[in-house]
Amino acid sequence: MSKFNLNQSIQILRNTPAVLRILLCDLSEDWITQNEGGESWSPYDIVGHFIHGEKTDWVQRAKIILEFGKSKPFTPFDRFAQVRDSAGKGIKVLLDEFELLRSENLNVLSMMKLQDNDLKKEGIHPELGIVTLKQLIATWVIHDLSHIRQISRVMAKNYKDEIGPWQEYLPVVNE
Amino acid sequence: MSKFNLNQSIQILRNTPAVLRILLCDLSEDWITQNEGGESWSPYDIVGHFIHGEKTDWVQRAKIILEFGKSKPFTPFDRFAQVRDSAGKGIKVLLDEFELLRSENLNVLSMMKLQDNDLKKEGIHPELGIVTLKQLIATWVIHDLSHIRQISRVMAKNYKDEIGPWQEYLPVVNE
Repeated sequence: MSKFNLNQSIQILRNTPAVLRILLCDLSEDWITQNEGGESWSPYDIVGHFIHGEKTDWVQRAKIILEFGKSKPFTPFDRFAQVRDSAGKGIKVLLDEFELLRSENLNVLSMMKLQDNDLKKEGIHPELGIVTLKQLIATWVIHDLSHIRQISRVMAKNYKDEIGPWQEYLPVVNE
Repeated sequence: MSKFNLNQSIQILRNTPAVLRILLCDLSEDWITQNEGGESWSPYDIVGHFIHGEKTDWVQRAKIILEFGKSKPFTPFDRFAQVRDSAGKGIKVLLDEFELLRSENLNVLSMMKLQDNDLKKEGIHPELGIVTLKQLIATWVIHDLSHIRQISRVMAKNYKDEIGPWQEYLPVVNE
């Protein structure tokens, strides 16, 4: 495991829009919109979820910690906002939107000029209770990686019926 | 789920080197070499494994199917070759090597001008028995996605101890 490092975290956060763009570029509609059944998310939904996070979650919560500390809990996050916000938009529009918002938010983060003592500052998560600014930023990073992981899993399942006996070696298609 | 489509498969295979490059670019050594404990693989190991696949697995096996059909089983794949082959090489060297080999292999695949009847041709996997060329190429695609997934999981675990109470929302760090 690694110790938290702000510059390293920012580098991973900066990489994500391009990772998504390349992972999803020039794919046909079915590869973008296929989900894992029921209410589960497709790559398209996940990009919308990333956008909503940039608008309402990470940097907004960092501002609340720095300005209000534990006196003002974070606004709860809407996990279904993307259904409303993405409606009618193509995947390229969403990828552009995410890239722009992420870049703006990393600028805001950079302008905060966070020092070690800032990273220890605390805020109140509406469900999880006391969290630190450092935990918030580390979670932002892991959240990115977790959804890149989800997208590659959802995509992998697309060919579940096409790989024949190799299913035995690729358990991802049956998860 | 999607029906097998050769062009779509090639597009995903073409994207993978750039996905890996961006996912791993400008990260410090610990993010590249951290594994999940024991003999498990780091992102560095996985890139080496991708390289060995390009050298000995996918296109080589496609050639065996087209040339020998079921009369010559595939050469078994060495899952530990990367430990030997990658020794002493930096991650950027490996990423360049993978990109070049993948590009060459996709050229070979393209020159095969595969038709529907070719995709039905059969070969012998040393452990799994009869497989078709279509299954081989579909597996190549899913294998890419499965290891992108693995890399993002391995990376996510790096900050397991840094996200505090958010572990509850990000089960990936405890998998």
